[in-house]
Amino acid sequence: MSLLVIGTMAFDAIETPFAKVDSIIGGAATFITLSASFFVQPVNLVAVIGYDYPQETVDDLVRRGVNIEGLQRKTDQKSFFWAGKYHNDLNTRDTVATELNVLADFDPVLPDSYQGTPFVLLGNLTPSVQMQVIERMKDRPQLIAMDTMNFWMDIALDSLLETIEKVDLLTINDEEARQLTGEFSLIKAGKKILTMGPKYAVIKKGEHGALLFYEDQVFVAPALPLEEVFDPTGAGDSFAGGMMGYLARQGEVTFDNLKNAIIYGSTLASFCVEDFGPRRLLTLTKDEIRQRYLAFQQISAYNQTLI
Amino acid sequence: MSLLVIGTMAFDAIETPFAKVDSIIGGAATFITLSASFFVQPVNLVAVIGYDYPQETVDDLVRRGVNIEGLQRKTDQKSFFWAGKYHNDLNTRDTVATELNVLADFDPVLPDSYQGTPFVLLGNLTPSVQMQVIERMKDRPQLIAMDTMNFWMDIALDSLLETIEKVDLLTINDEEARQLTGEFSLIKAGKKILTMGPKYAVIKKGEHGALLFYEDQVFVAPALPLEEVFDPTGAGDSFAGGMMGYLARQGEVTFDNLKNAIIYGSTLASFCVEDFGPRRLLTLTKDEIRQRYLAFQQISAYNQTLI
Repeated sequence: MSLLVIGTMAFDAIETPFAKVDSIIGGAATFITLSASFFVQPVNLVAVIGYDYPQETVDDLVRRGVNIEGLQRKTDQKSFFWAGKYHNDLNTRDTVATELNVLADFDPVLPDSYQGTPFVLLGNLTPSVQMQVIERMKDRPQLIAMDTMNFWMDIALDSLLETIEKVDLLTINDEEARQLTGEFSLIKAGKKILTMGPKYAVIKKGEHGALLFYEDQVFVAPALPLEEVFDPTGAGDSFAGGMMGYLARQGEVTFDNLKNAIIYGSTLASFCVEDFGPRRLLTLTKDEIRQRYLAFQQISAYNQTLI
Repeated sequence: MSLLVIGTMAFDAIETPFAKVDSIIGGAATFITLSASFFVQPVNLVAVIGYDYPQETVDDLVRRGVNIEGLQRKTDQKSFFWAGKYHNDLNTRDTVATELNVLADFDPVLPDSYQGTPFVLLGNLTPSVQMQVIERMKDRPQLIAMDTMNFWMDIALDSLLETIEKVDLLTINDEEARQLTGEFSLIKAGKKILTMGPKYAVIKKGEHGALLFYEDQVFVAPALPLEEVFDPTGAGDSFAGGMMGYLARQGEVTFDNLKNAIIYGSTLASFCVEDFGPRRLLTLTKDEIRQRYLAFQQISAYNQTLI
């Protein structure tokens, strides 16, 4: 099955407590397409880049099975730019600079060949642009998933809520879930999201794993504690890309497939954080993914003994 | 097998965002013995109480299989008193008042009948008092476990490190593990603790589960997300009590028994937080423990599917 992905393709400047990089490719769609392409082809990409986004990266995505018919290049503008600085705990960061550039008037183009794509992932982006993609799909896809962040809750809450109402699955991190729902308990927050439109909610807890909500069921995905986190940038996008790539590969949305999708998403995220930006994803192999996927279960396994 | 427990028996004043109680029985040993008694008898208690600690609670502990030969009652002094106020996230708290009272000159008495107890749990207490218990055991027990907190790192670090060096297992929460080791990564922190004396380290992550370290192995205990946390007081002690109760019940320290011990510890902690102080533990049944233990695995279970 195929997967349609919309998201930013950008340059990032990243500073962590360990190191610093002034310019590296980034953006949600870069991480998502790289991650998803390990599971499914084609990945139908909708995005906009400026004259400065490297053609080699685009060519590499094509080699990985990414369809770039919906990728616009604006030769007179720069790509979206984001600069962030992580705090010592690596769980929080400050945005140091944001230059919208090509993103300022992004009008997503959905080529005819993308119509009928059964799985859609709306990467973190202006909610109204995410909504445009939903509206421009002539037939309702099997599953529309959406990622978002606190920024949109602060500046475009109404539009965000309207978009959330239209999707089947929302991925969101723990603090954002609390902000969105006003519930401190993540269990209550997850259940509340299910009353806001989505049939499924995934709350990402970083190094502590993830929670999946569906009807009155909750799945607690184990965490894979990492000795070193080098750069968390793109972890959430890699999670979403791995998750939706696996679902599209399986072709059917069952609770069991969703559970595995979350483990694969966590697997991709765990690789992503090992190096700056998407560097680690670029050298990653399917075999490494398989091995770490197996490690997730192994590290949490025990033989039940009842008292 | 039997378990020896030393710890405080106290009165607490607790304020959470939801409710407040001015005086309720508490103290590490209260939570530990209640939790451990579901798994093993006798629990040989070493503690000191004042004239005000209720005799009914002591009688109840005896009915539950707690041996009180090592429990001193000082009829001219009040019991240890602690007052704390939880922040909105319930994960952090301020100590509002501490009155040592009977604890000021606590000289732990180990009756002859306690000698030879194979499992020992040193509940959170002055490290030098914990050390006295180790020194007063004539034969080395099979396993000495120790719980501690950041307070002792701040005011008695040298004595704490000396005591840690003498124990087999250290339980500690995530922030304390970071403070003790100077490592932000919990994996690095856990491994570092294993170089400080203990053969096993258990890092408690509250609602996110726990990590067990042994040689170069790590076990990630799943978390059981709770819809409501009413009062976290005693959760860490209930965890330690359930864990050591189960180990003493099994009678053998294997990695597999330790894994289950941590799940049982998490189970007891998950009940503890449902009501003020030890109230929930007082009404708890073995059957409820069994059911929740099973829920821990069920909520994290999935059928592996390799890509």
